Amino acid sequence: MIFDALFGDPAVDVLFSDVSLIAAMLRVEVALARAEAAVGVIPERAVDAIEQSADARRYDLAALAAEAANAGNLAIPLVRHLTECVASIDADSARYVHWGATSQDIIDTAMVLQLRDATAIVLATLERAGDAAAALAERHASTLMPGRTWLQHATPITFGLKAAGWMSMLDRSRAHIQHALLPASVLQLGGASGTLAAFGDRGSDVARAMCSELSLELPEMPWHASRDRIATLVCALGVATGAMGKIARDISLLAQTEVGEASEPEGEGRGGSSTMPHKRNPVGSAVVLAASVRVPGLVATVLAAMPQEHERALGGWQAEWETIPALVRITAGAARRTAEMLGGLEIDAERMRANIEIMHGVSMAESVSMELAEHIGKFDAHRIIGAAAKRAIDEQRALAAVLVEMPEVTKHLSRAAIERRLSAEQYIGAAEQFVRDALRDHARNERAGAHESR
Amino acid sequence: MIFDALFGDPAVDVLFSDVSLIAAMLRVEVALARAEAAVGVIPERAVDAIEQSADARRYDLAALAAEAANAGNLAIPLVRHLTECVASIDADSARYVHWGATSQDIIDTAMVLQLRDATAIVLATLERAGDAAAALAERHASTLMPGRTWLQHATPITFGLKAAGWMSMLDRSRAHIQHALLPASVLQLGGASGTLAAFGDRGSDVARAMCSELSLELPEMPWHASRDRIATLVCALGVATGAMGKIARDISLLAQTEVGEASEPEGEGRGGSSTMPHKRNPVGSAVVLAASVRVPGLVATVLAAMPQEHERALGGWQAEWETIPALVRITAGAARRTAEMLGGLEIDAERMRANIEIMHGVSMAESVSMELAEHIGKFDAHRIIGAAAKRAIDEQRALAAVLVEMPEVTKHLSRAAIERRLSAEQYIGAAEQFVRDALRDHARNERAGAHESR
Amino acid sequence: MIFDALFGDPAVDVLFSDVSLIAAMLRVEVALARAEAAVGVIPERAVDAIEQSADARRYDLAALAAEAANAGNLAIPLVRHLTECVASIDADSARYVHWGATSQDIIDTAMVLQLRDATAIVLATLERAGDAAAALAERHASTLMPGRTWLQHATPITFGLKAAGWMSMLDRSRAHIQHALLPASVLQLGGASGTLAAFGDRGSDVARAMCSELSLELPEMPWHASRDRIATLVCALGVATGAMGKIARDISLLAQTEVGEASEPEGEGRGGSSTMPHKRNPVGSAVVLAASVRVPGLVATVLAAMPQEHERALGGWQAEWETIPALVRITAGAARRTAEMLGGLEIDAERMRANIEIMHGVSMAESVSMELAEHIGKFDAHRIIGAAAKRAIDEQRALAAVLVEMPEVTKHLSRAAIERRLSAEQYIGAAEQFVRDALRDHARNERAGAHESR
Amino acid sequence: MIFDALFGDPAVDVLFSDVSLIAAMLRVEVALARAEAAVGVIPERAVDAIEQSADARRYDLAALAAEAANAGNLAIPLVRHLTECVASIDADSARYVHWGATSQDIIDTAMVLQLRDATAIVLATLERAGDAAAALAERHASTLMPGRTWLQHATPITFGLKAAGWMSMLDRSRAHIQHALLPASVLQLGGASGTLAAFGDRGSDVARAMCSELSLELPEMPWHASRDRIATLVCALGVATGAMGKIARDISLLAQTEVGEASEPEGEGRGGSSTMPHKRNPVGSAVVLAASVRVPGLVATVLAAMPQEHERALGGWQAEWETIPALVRITAGAARRTAEMLGGLEIDAERMRANIEIMHGVSMAESVSMELAEHIGKFDAHRIIGAAAKRAIDEQRALAAVLVEMPEVTKHLSRAAIERRLSAEQYIGAAEQFVRDALRDHARNERAGAHESR
Repeated sequence: MIFDALFGDPAVDVLFSDVSLIAAMLRVEVALARAEAAVGVIPERAVDAIEQSADARRYDLAALAAEAANAGNLAIPLVRHLTECVASIDADSARYVHWGATSQDIIDTAMVLQLRDATAIVLATLERAGDAAAALAERHASTLMPGRTWLQHATPITFGLKAAGWMSMLDRSRAHIQHALLPASVLQLGGASGTLAAFGDRGSDVARAMCSELSLELPEMPWHASRDRIATLVCALGVATGAMGKIARDISLLAQTEVGEASEPEGEGRGGSSTMPHKRNPVGSAVVLAASVRVPGLVATVLAAMPQEHERALGGWQAEWETIPALVRITAGAARRTAEMLGGLEIDAERMRANIEIMHGVSMAESVSMELAEHIGKFDAHRIIGAAAKRAIDEQRALAAVLVEMPEVTKHLSRAAIERRLSAEQYIGAAEQFVRDALRDHARNERAGAHESR
Repeated sequence: MIFDALFGDPAVDVLFSDVSLIAAMLRVEVALARAEAAVGVIPERAVDAIEQSADARRYDLAALAAEAANAGNLAIPLVRHLTECVASIDADSARYVHWGATSQDIIDTAMVLQLRDATAIVLATLERAGDAAAALAERHASTLMPGRTWLQHATPITFGLKAAGWMSMLDRSRAHIQHALLPASVLQLGGASGTLAAFGDRGSDVARAMCSELSLELPEMPWHASRDRIATLVCALGVATGAMGKIARDISLLAQTEVGEASEPEGEGRGGSSTMPHKRNPVGSAVVLAASVRVPGLVATVLAAMPQEHERALGGWQAEWETIPALVRITAGAARRTAEMLGGLEIDAERMRANIEIMHGVSMAESVSMELAEHIGKFDAHRIIGAAAKRAIDEQRALAAVLVEMPEVTKHLSRAAIERRLSAEQYIGAAEQFVRDALRDHARNERAGAHESR
Repeated sequence: MIFDALFGDPAVDVLFSDVSLIAAMLRVEVALARAEAAVGVIPERAVDAIEQSADARRYDLAALAAEAANAGNLAIPLVRHLTECVASIDADSARYVHWGATSQDIIDTAMVLQLRDATAIVLATLERAGDAAAALAERHASTLMPGRTWLQHATPITFGLKAAGWMSMLDRSRAHIQHALLPASVLQLGGASGTLAAFGDRGSDVARAMCSELSLELPEMPWHASRDRIATLVCALGVATGAMGKIARDISLLAQTEVGEASEPEGEGRGGSSTMPHKRNPVGSAVVLAASVRVPGLVATVLAAMPQEHERALGGWQAEWETIPALVRITAGAARRTAEMLGGLEIDAERMRANIEIMHGVSMAESVSMELAEHIGKFDAHRIIGAAAKRAIDEQRALAAVLVEMPEVTKHLSRAAIERRLSAEQYIGAAEQFVRDALRDHARNERAGAHESR
Repeated sequence: MIFDALFGDPAVDVLFSDVSLIAAMLRVEVALARAEAAVGVIPERAVDAIEQSADARRYDLAALAAEAANAGNLAIPLVRHLTECVASIDADSARYVHWGATSQDIIDTAMVLQLRDATAIVLATLERAGDAAAALAERHASTLMPGRTWLQHATPITFGLKAAGWMSMLDRSRAHIQHALLPASVLQLGGASGTLAAFGDRGSDVARAMCSELSLELPEMPWHASRDRIATLVCALGVATGAMGKIARDISLLAQTEVGEASEPEGEGRGGSSTMPHKRNPVGSAVVLAASVRVPGLVATVLAAMPQEHERALGGWQAEWETIPALVRITAGAARRTAEMLGGLEIDAERMRANIEIMHGVSMAESVSMELAEHIGKFDAHRIIGAAAKRAIDEQRALAAVLVEMPEVTKHLSRAAIERRLSAEQYIGAAEQFVRDALRDHARNERAGAHESR
């Protein structure tokens, strides 16, 4: 609650509020009644009374909570209160409340509805984040910066390449969530043991009508204790959060005082310190990184809960009730922060270019080593240039200056060749091409509605 | 919230409510001011104004939440609002609010206070659960039941032995939590970078005075990014929940329709089904098992968050804020349910004894095998008795009846010896002794205040 | 090693042996050389020498391991030894070994090859398991057994319905793995910082040629620190293992001594006890359940490792090296055991039918409650039948006998109606229909090559 | 295997090799036989034959592995082979092999022995690491460097303070492991169902004698399905790895090209790149960080495995067999790398001091803000100095130069006061005191054998 605004996304948080949960469950009860009336299992009149009683705001959440603690799930007290409410309108209709269904039918279908709505928001936010990354990739396709491996300077890249990598991950994550959403967007209706026995031979008709009420797909059979549909969606959200964690890690490292190549968008009061007046803390990165630390444990919980007993679980199913909403909310919050960060990221291109030079050209060592290798082989070139690089760093001199003093180098390479090779601009390979290719894929995905992942 | 009553413990839940969190943070601010006044860093008069402003109920939680989302932590807006409140009482005193401290000092110390109070409740509940298990162990020290390994009948045990095992786990868990609580019951006070620099040479005095205000220990240095103290306590709670999960697993298996040896305490509306009138679902076991599925992922999160950057983390610390309260609440809920289940567990001793017989004496096979082994060696005895057991099961006959027809057996064992050996009562070994020993340890721990784990 | 045969699958284990890993890396080096020669980056002659040197069995694994410990990855020593080997054949060719690539290019592409081969085996095994489940579903479409919810008897189902649920999960898991395999079946080739700079303008040509050598897809750009492709596949395997855990949980519960409805295939020495001659432990279930306990933590590890730094990670990537093979092997072992269990599962249909009766007809209570509800409403019917059910159990009498004594029941229902309603055969609803539908989907998936998940 | 040298510790790896596992199990069988002979349960002569047969190197590991896959555990085939071996020496003695024990007695006690030995090595390595950190803390007690919070410069600290924080975590981790080792250093002996029934009334005597053979403690009862003892030790190792992860995170961040304040010890071939001649990758940090990513998932696995069924588990226990050795080995490897890194860490004190200045004195803003606050209150001072800091950074000027131009500042503070306040040397508060206090605690712990944690 008090941390919702920090870690979550308001639009998703509201979907998982207590009253929204009750509303979703009531929506399922109404759809059940409508479907049953449509196929003639219960009278039409009962539907009216049930619909009139299905306003979640009229229910006493504290009472429901207390009774659920005793009953073991929320559907039992909700059905009791709903029945009373219907009875107060029309005594006869009360007998048809929750007709033929079991608690898990209501709870699971409500969760499916919540997941569908929440996932749509996450997808839209990820699309916004991906577009923001694409804009960065395009704008900075040729903006040179140090490549960094193992947190050490490597050969240069362009910032556009880094942003294109972020964009691609976001696009793939989105496509993957969309794909995983399909098998999870199904009705749960099985009755006591998953046979729909209470409906006699009308079970399939009711189920079909209910799917049409709720715009859900009809599964080939109830799935009370088969949680792979849900787990698959949970995993897709987990991967997306991990991908956003990588972006946040990069941004937070670029924003370091000593690096200074990027900073999160500024804002009044954003990222201040209670004691240090100068601080601008990277709040967005912290939230996303925190999400990427938390979500793996929640995914593991959902997976660990999968071996559910027989036709309804004892423990595993119940473990999902708070875990899945938490996971979706954290993912949504991470997506919101990622979109916001990418949308307003401040890039210091001059600092990027300047930082390449702090190694005195040594990060370009591979380039000259490759040219030298053409003459003396990779192994010896690697050794000779490695020694020169060490000298350059020890003596704080430009690598070029060191190399031109080494006969074993100058025998094969001219000073001009060395200098050309040590120019960062000349050594970014296919970076710009990769950015173009990735942007082309991004645009194509946009057009195609991003329905397919690679 | 709507699931708090189901999965949590009301006494612990209230400790972690939003208003309690703010109250704990304000308590730390007050203690800081008192300590600073006591050593002369700020004027006494400021303390009065700060104390008067420290009523959590007067703060606008929604506003704090919204500002925290921007600032990155709760302390920044809280200090701002507190300062305003103090200023409205005495403008001059406002300048001394939060003097010399950093946000994490307040947030961490408040969490320590919450953890100390919540852990005390968990410990008391575990003690109640342990005592209930002890009562079961004592009452049923000699109540025979099937031993079960790999979910198959093994040689018999007594229910007291099983209950004594539960009791021992609960006692050890409690002792371990108590031990882990010590290093976590420490002040956090370091200021901006953990040096107390803003206090000049008065930092240590302030810290000592603050410890005495809050009855906390003084650590040898601030621990902003050293989370082992917290992680150790979290792990101890995690192990306790796993131990309770084992108890719940056993109870749920004993309560199976086909086994029927134990059932959870009955209660009006407890464990009903929304559709099946006869159902009495083991709600307590489900809650505890759900806890034991959820807690490992939360423990993993706290451990994964430990590699925190330099003097204050970017992501790891923030990952704790919702995770640790969730974990403590789930553990407390599991403890409450475990105590309740053990306190009212219904045991069907007749069914236990009867269930031993469903294997036609075959679960006693080891007994006669061991006696035969004295004559022909373990290996051959194992083989011969194994074949007899298979025949007994296939033919649905008593193992004794099969054995007396086998000359390779009767050559060494008389019918009387066989029957004596196949009597469950004669084959419970040290079970009763183990129960006595464990109860003795339990009583000793009670007397000693359970300060030491084995 | 010593546990490989217990927990793994020999065909997959061999793919992840040390020598196979080296072989896969050498295969990548060879493909790199061939591709480079094909586009003219290195001379053809070098390819011959590299191919001749690429026999993994000739490499000293202990030496590679020791050097890797120092260098930080396996590729560095392998390239060194490979270069030496090539030099011994043709000194000039040695300079072209590993030309333009970086360690991670080799390590990641080799992992992709291993994953592709291992996943193919897992998929085939899952198909076998799904077919075995389908055979069970078909054979037992109408075999009545107790439905069980919260480990308590519920209304009856058929064993075919349970088996069809297993089958559907296996089919969906398989389809999902296949889908996740696509984005993971890509080349990794980026050179030092992911720009292919060492190739000048020939990078894309080399990459394309290498893809064709290895039958891999070309990604839009290198993905050294973008691990979502791998994490997605890992998650799909994780969900499959969870699904198999559900199957194993069910089998182990059905095999309980008191239940006796199913047992794992017998085998000489299978599931024995070192001390109890009669034991037949469900070894297959234990292995699969152990897998479902272990895999969630490994999935969490891969997700937690995703926030990798810049162009090459410090810690996160390295965390994958042992984790992913372990996860794949455990999944493969679970699949093997699941296929074996389902292929030879022994079903005791008589015991299933008999077990329905141990509740004296009480598990059919819903059926008569629903009929009574037609007259007096669901709420009252539920209450009246609930009381009758309690009496039947307390007095150990048939529920029918209790009901015919209750005027509030007989007023509405005749004795014949009651008895018809309490007949399990009459109360399995759509169970058989569900089985047929699921089998139809299974057959369709088979025909379609199971390329699409629902 | 091929990664053992990279991620593990050779001394610990050897303890968990296949042959060592078999040796530990044989050692338990021998101890059992000796204990049984000592109390007269089996003849002395059998002990000789069993001892002669207990050389692990004589056993066919591949055969044991294959049979274990079928039997479900390693003890069954081992007992069979041991029995054959004994029989070949003395047929009569063969009947006394494994007398009265169950497989889990052997497997668990062997694991306890392995854990005890491995933990001793981990403890010694952690002590070495702690001493190395202490030496750094002492040497650099007054070495100024930037404090860093949220990866942004904060007020200065000393490197000694950072190292003292590492030391304290290592010391606490060690003390905590030692404490957790006690309840885990116990015999497992219960026989088939944990009652020692096969021993008649001699069970306790045998158990006591066996404890004395193996220098283990006698638990109050067998603990086959009560895994808290093991889980507690596992958690302690997990916390230690997290603590080491924090150290490695710090070192890797200090070693960044742009920071350059510390570097891992150099070594021939250490941390090279296969393509970039200049690279010196922080291999130690990578290994430790990888460990801290992997261990949380393994800890979660052990916790998730705790709810074990009845007297012997189906899945949970088996999940431990590979997980616990993996976890211990990774922890041991992390400890070895941490000790090595800390022992040879290269510190660039000049660079540390210089890095403080890159913020133009802005990181000292709190200092002058606190002094100004004495005059105008914390809130206004924070605002004024914050604006000045922003100006200093924007204009790349010294904060002091900006401040002396601001009348609202100079009204209260002289130029000299401002400059004194902005001197890093004057603003390290209690840093040196904390280092002294922590070193005193460290020395005291050393003397006390570090038996108690705070």
